[in-house]
Amino acid sequence: MSTPFQPFPTASDKKELEEGLVLAPKWDRDGLVPAVAIDATTREPLMLAYMNAESLRMTLDKGEAVYWSRSRREIWHKGATSGQVQRIVEIRTDCDQDALILYVEQAGGGCCHTGRSTCFYRRVEGAGDGGDDGLVFRDEA
Amino acid sequence: MSTPFQPFPTASDKKELEEGLVLAPKWDRDGLVPAVAIDATTREPLMLAYMNAESLRMTLDKGEAVYWSRSRREIWHKGATSGQVQRIVEIRTDCDQDALILYVEQAGGGCCHTGRSTCFYRRVEGAGDGGDDGLVFRDEA
Repeated sequence: MSTPFQPFPTASDKKELEEGLVLAPKWDRDGLVPAVAIDATTREPLMLAYMNAESLRMTLDKGEAVYWSRSRREIWHKGATSGQVQRIVEIRTDCDQDALILYVEQAGGGCCHTGRSTCFYRRVEGAGDGGDDGLVFRDEA
Repeated sequence: MSTPFQPFPTASDKKELEEGLVLAPKWDRDGLVPAVAIDATTREPLMLAYMNAESLRMTLDKGEAVYWSRSRREIWHKGATSGQVQRIVEIRTDCDQDALILYVEQAGGGCCHTGRSTCFYRRVEGAGDGGDDGLVFRDEA
């Protein structure tokens, strides 16, 4: 993508990163941060994907989640073809600004390419009391 | 770490990965997956960190969150020194098994090294309606 866009600053030190009032994401070596979409109404975690600076800028401008597809290596405006648009309600960042939480209104009945409402439709059986690595489909997903 | 541990299988194909009943994480090129801890009671997102196979195995065995510290390059049993232990209530994985959600009981008053209850204590101002990259401290964090 060659569209010009307004990039983000880099925090000058740890204090500015952690206590500052400027969004200054700490990109990984591929220029990405993970972003976790959560349904703003049900509080259900929907999916985890990645953003680069351009897709985060597009997300802020559009008010809809735009990710970077690592497999296709391209900007991915979620729902542009599927209808599963995620309208942004709130974005949070963490202490060292290397992760994002997106509270979204999920359109199109869900976010998952499998047709389910959430990508997190399985839980690890017995996790917390010595699981055997079995997965269980969650009823509500 | 040289402790032997039971590794995880690799899914043989996309169907097994997405519809199978075996935990077969899709590790990134550093051997990691992101794991998002959420407070099981309040449903507040607490933090995002990374697990390798050994730390995921330890998490399942102990019933407490064990991460891989990317900065220190070592196994990180969360709370072992700080008291901020995360007891596992439920673990979910996503369609392509490259992300985890941990519902936890957070001990020690919170998870963040800054002393706050959650690492996600700031939100992006005006996100969704053309933000100016300003961050705002959330009152409840």
